[in-house]
Amino acid sequence: MTTDDRPVLALDVGGTKLAAALVDSTGRIREAARTRTPRGPRTDADTLWTALMSLVDIVTASVGPRGVAGVGVGCGGPMDWPTGVVSPLNIPAWRGFPLGPRLAERFSTVPVRVHNDAVCVAVGEHARGAGRGQAHLLGMVVSTGVGGGLVLGNRVVDGAHGNAGHVGHVVVDPNGPDCVCGGVGCLEAVAAGPNLARWAEEQGWRPTAAWGEEHSARELAEDARRGHPVALAAMERAGGALGVAIASVTHLLDLSVVAVGGGLSQAGPLLFDPLEASFRRHARLSYAREVRVVPAALGQDAGLVGAAALILQPDRYWNPAG
Amino acid sequence: MTTDDRPVLALDVGGTKLAAALVDSTGRIREAARTRTPRGPRTDADTLWTALMSLVDIVTASVGPRGVAGVGVGCGGPMDWPTGVVSPLNIPAWRGFPLGPRLAERFSTVPVRVHNDAVCVAVGEHARGAGRGQAHLLGMVVSTGVGGGLVLGNRVVDGAHGNAGHVGHVVVDPNGPDCVCGGVGCLEAVAAGPNLARWAEEQGWRPTAAWGEEHSARELAEDARRGHPVALAAMERAGGALGVAIASVTHLLDLSVVAVGGGLSQAGPLLFDPLEASFRRHARLSYAREVRVVPAALGQDAGLVGAAALILQPDRYWNPAG
Repeated sequence: MTTDDRPVLALDVGGTKLAAALVDSTGRIREAARTRTPRGPRTDADTLWTALMSLVDIVTASVGPRGVAGVGVGCGGPMDWPTGVVSPLNIPAWRGFPLGPRLAERFSTVPVRVHNDAVCVAVGEHARGAGRGQAHLLGMVVSTGVGGGLVLGNRVVDGAHGNAGHVGHVVVDPNGPDCVCGGVGCLEAVAAGPNLARWAEEQGWRPTAAWGEEHSARELAEDARRGHPVALAAMERAGGALGVAIASVTHLLDLSVVAVGGGLSQAGPLLFDPLEASFRRHARLSYAREVRVVPAALGQDAGLVGAAALILQPDRYWNPAG
Repeated sequence: MTTDDRPVLALDVGGTKLAAALVDSTGRIREAARTRTPRGPRTDADTLWTALMSLVDIVTASVGPRGVAGVGVGCGGPMDWPTGVVSPLNIPAWRGFPLGPRLAERFSTVPVRVHNDAVCVAVGEHARGAGRGQAHLLGMVVSTGVGGGLVLGNRVVDGAHGNAGHVGHVVVDPNGPDCVCGGVGCLEAVAAGPNLARWAEEQGWRPTAAWGEEHSARELAEDARRGHPVALAAMERAGGALGVAIASVTHLLDLSVVAVGGGLSQAGPLLFDPLEASFRRHARLSYAREVRVVPAALGQDAGLVGAAALILQPDRYWNPAG
């Protein structure tokens, strides 16, 4: 922990929502504000920046812009890391947007650190959620896409370009569906909400509300809870694919715990039961049998808690020099 | 590097051969001795220990038992780590054998460090082989089994029980063959020498020499070089599975380089060409396209060089406390 007792400003920037929070030095959220991410043809880079800065103004009102010890940010990828020049797949208006540099200009006396949003979720779950006290964690977000982050030996894993943790592009079936990444049979191609919803629609499922693509995972999960047979079959399909990928990663990395969050995880046992069955079928080495696969504990706060931890616990969570 | 200029004793303990070497403080092998691993019904734990100690006596003759700065050991798994109480799958006479404690008794004034043999190969390739100067490496050994080790951010990855690196049990086909681990569709179930040879025999290939199971990967590779059509098809099959697993690991960990060694890699382009094709088909995220998959550079010395590095560069390669 830092000895600075000023709070940290945490930001969570995604294609669906923007969030800002003031997080105290023990990692607890003290103030938070959220809004839908501006979309549509008239949304340009500055519209988004202005919306984000309005949230910042709201949560820092009580302390002022000089009252924060640092700024931690989780943002959708890809990005140039660690500079924080971002091009989030789901935010078309930001292509090569200098989010890190712009924040560093505004908060010039304190550190500004930007990392992948799914990495921040994993960090949050490790620091204060389902992975607390566990040295080796895979954190996953299953919603519009399938993202993830890794903490091994109590340190976040960044990889050569800050992209480590992309569990959505572990291959679960070499003859499976084409993936948006250009590959074949990735976990995301099977288990991401829109892909799973498309599969369910091919089997006769119809969404009950016109919420748009980013909500389909949650809606499918809700229909499964209501007993819709195709939605149930979709949960089996997603759980099976998740179990295969988690078994592969567990064997490879000798993990302690896997935390699964995101809209699809709202299905509860309807997803986690087939996931567990598939995981146990494939993860058979003795050390893998001890691993627990659990629902993420922090919900929508995980990304903010993790973003703050980039500032509060840099020994563990911010190591761009390797 | 250590400031102690005494050489390090390095041991490599496998089901096929035992090796010992004296390695200088710059990591170069100065003396080495090898022998076939004693086998058969009359081989007991002490027979093996005596054979290993004979090799130790040979390579330490010039300096004496007190002339070494430490003892680094690569041994087949599974093992209790970091204590080095070992039960190598391919050495039935050692079940719960206290290899680390016995060596610590004999070399009581210096550190004794035991790690998985495939981890030592990866460490050797990182320290002085195909991964030199690369921060993020997967090292693989494809022979009787498929083993591996990981170095991320220039530090070896151990996992919760010292078992990280088991790339042979990444799932490459959820409907693939049963694996010796109890799982289904693991890389090892497809691409390990004996499994590949069994598949080739089902297609009509016959081994030309009765070398025993542990040589089948090398022999199949040699027959592929001579143009045997089934041996060639086997290389396609193994290369395809290796490419899938390497793509998954590359996406997950944002690697710099992958080094592939072991008997099967002797096939050269006959293996590496289909491997590369499969890898490029599945590894499509931009950061993964830069990754090189290369033959391991150190051959049979890699395990000894890596075992010595456990002593010579503990900051990078020996972190049992996490």
